[in-house]
Amino acid sequence: MQTGPIAILAGSGRFPELLADNLDKTGRPCRILAIRGFAEASLRKRADAAVDLLDVKKVIACLREWGPSAVTMAGGIHRPKPSAVLSAFSILRNRREIAEVMGRGDDQLLRGVVELLEEQGHRVLGVHDLAPELLARPGIQGIHRPNSGDLRAIAIGVKLLDDLSAYDMGQGVVVADERVVAIEGPEGTDRMLARVRGLRRSWSLKKTPGTGVLVKMPKRGQDLRIDLPAIGPRTFVRAAKAGLRGVAVASGVTLVLDREQTVRTADRLGMFLVGTAAGDDASSDAA
Amino acid sequence: MQTGPIAILAGSGRFPELLADNLDKTGRPCRILAIRGFAEASLRKRADAAVDLLDVKKVIACLREWGPSAVTMAGGIHRPKPSAVLSAFSILRNRREIAEVMGRGDDQLLRGVVELLEEQGHRVLGVHDLAPELLARPGIQGIHRPNSGDLRAIAIGVKLLDDLSAYDMGQGVVVADERVVAIEGPEGTDRMLARVRGLRRSWSLKKTPGTGVLVKMPKRGQDLRIDLPAIGPRTFVRAAKAGLRGVAVASGVTLVLDREQTVRTADRLGMFLVGTAAGDDASSDAA
Repeated sequence: MQTGPIAILAGSGRFPELLADNLDKTGRPCRILAIRGFAEASLRKRADAAVDLLDVKKVIACLREWGPSAVTMAGGIHRPKPSAVLSAFSILRNRREIAEVMGRGDDQLLRGVVELLEEQGHRVLGVHDLAPELLARPGIQGIHRPNSGDLRAIAIGVKLLDDLSAYDMGQGVVVADERVVAIEGPEGTDRMLARVRGLRRSWSLKKTPGTGVLVKMPKRGQDLRIDLPAIGPRTFVRAAKAGLRGVAVASGVTLVLDREQTVRTADRLGMFLVGTAAGDDASSDAA
Repeated sequence: MQTGPIAILAGSGRFPELLADNLDKTGRPCRILAIRGFAEASLRKRADAAVDLLDVKKVIACLREWGPSAVTMAGGIHRPKPSAVLSAFSILRNRREIAEVMGRGDDQLLRGVVELLEEQGHRVLGVHDLAPELLARPGIQGIHRPNSGDLRAIAIGVKLLDDLSAYDMGQGVVVADERVVAIEGPEGTDRMLARVRGLRRSWSLKKTPGTGVLVKMPKRGQDLRIDLPAIGPRTFVRAAKAGLRGVAVASGVTLVLDREQTVRTADRLGMFLVGTAAGDDASSDAA
């Protein structure tokens, strides 16, 4: 099996294509299983097969035929209705167990998918295994630098996310000066940034533009195959609207969707992007 | 000075009146300084004086005349614009110091007010000192009881809020089953509950109604004179709309705005209200 292609289970967004391009470029054959209703049109054209989100039987049959050396999940898949998951998964797994998993975070749901694939004898890998060149690099990227206040805010954000690791919660925070302004929940980074934007309009947050940092880190012990923090050009556009000065991510464990375009957007908006080691206080990278 | 009246600096909402009523009932004279634009019309009628929010000079002159045995702050005061605070406070304090305080949480801003009053020789007390009978009681209130899942959620919420004590952040969380759904920021409890309501409509959160608990606790080491967590009938109305099963608060350190009406509202909506010791796992109270 180790000589087979890499199978990509492709959800929404640009990332599955970036990954396929990257594998092509480095001479590793891949086959794409596009998830209908999620995978982008351009990807569906080059996909080898397409499945409905919950058609577990077809996924398994497909993978059996391909005999991949590894399977990876890429792109977004919004959480399906519990009832739909129940009926699809119950072919293979215990109903009670799935119902329990559904009550927890997305994390635990996706962990179930990984387990299922592994039970079928597949090796499941993450982007960090297959294409580490798509991950955030350490240190300052682009032309703008965090100042000493930004570095303090980053240190607070990193420590807070580390403290939150024990909980099934988001992986992002916004810190302005020494104040934690927002912690990301299941609503995701985009909506958290919209919330910060709203706070800035009200009296609750310093009105002066250009304070605050978005910090994104995976949880300690996070299975990076199922949930890798990601940023892209859009992250900067939204962070700028929220009046932030920049973004700090954990280098080596954060996906950067289109690095060039991302850094160019940050530069244009006058924002910094810094890759920091998770658990670090960022000052060593940026000093 | 110990024999003077109790001076209430009265902001918005019903609470300043409840406090004045409570002091009247227990035979303690009080004088009310209503903050214009915030204090309710009914309170302004019985107030002894009125001031503009940032008229620090008049507040100090008024208090000097009254010679109160203690000063207490009651009711809501939305955060003023930094520029307005700067110009008002700068009469008395160092401009740089105030600018620094403004960059931090509401906590630190109000702490500045307490310090200012104390520098003027006043004793500043909180509701917990003056009217402990207005605070949440331990154990189950009303007719509905938390189930074992609710108790687990409460325990997670209490532990999380304790872990967050080190940060200048909100004092509320929503936990559904074992998942942290939202952490309160400067937006306040009402908007956090609106967010949970939105999440429940999307795929991100279990659709079945009736899971989840709102947990409110003061931070460890919190100065209760300047920020006491509060609930009231409206909290339950909003929590019900967010699909929650109940509310847990720290007994003895949470204000209940109109206890009777609050418990009646909880009962009517089929929700529980439990008072738990901060840091407790709530199971001892509710077993």
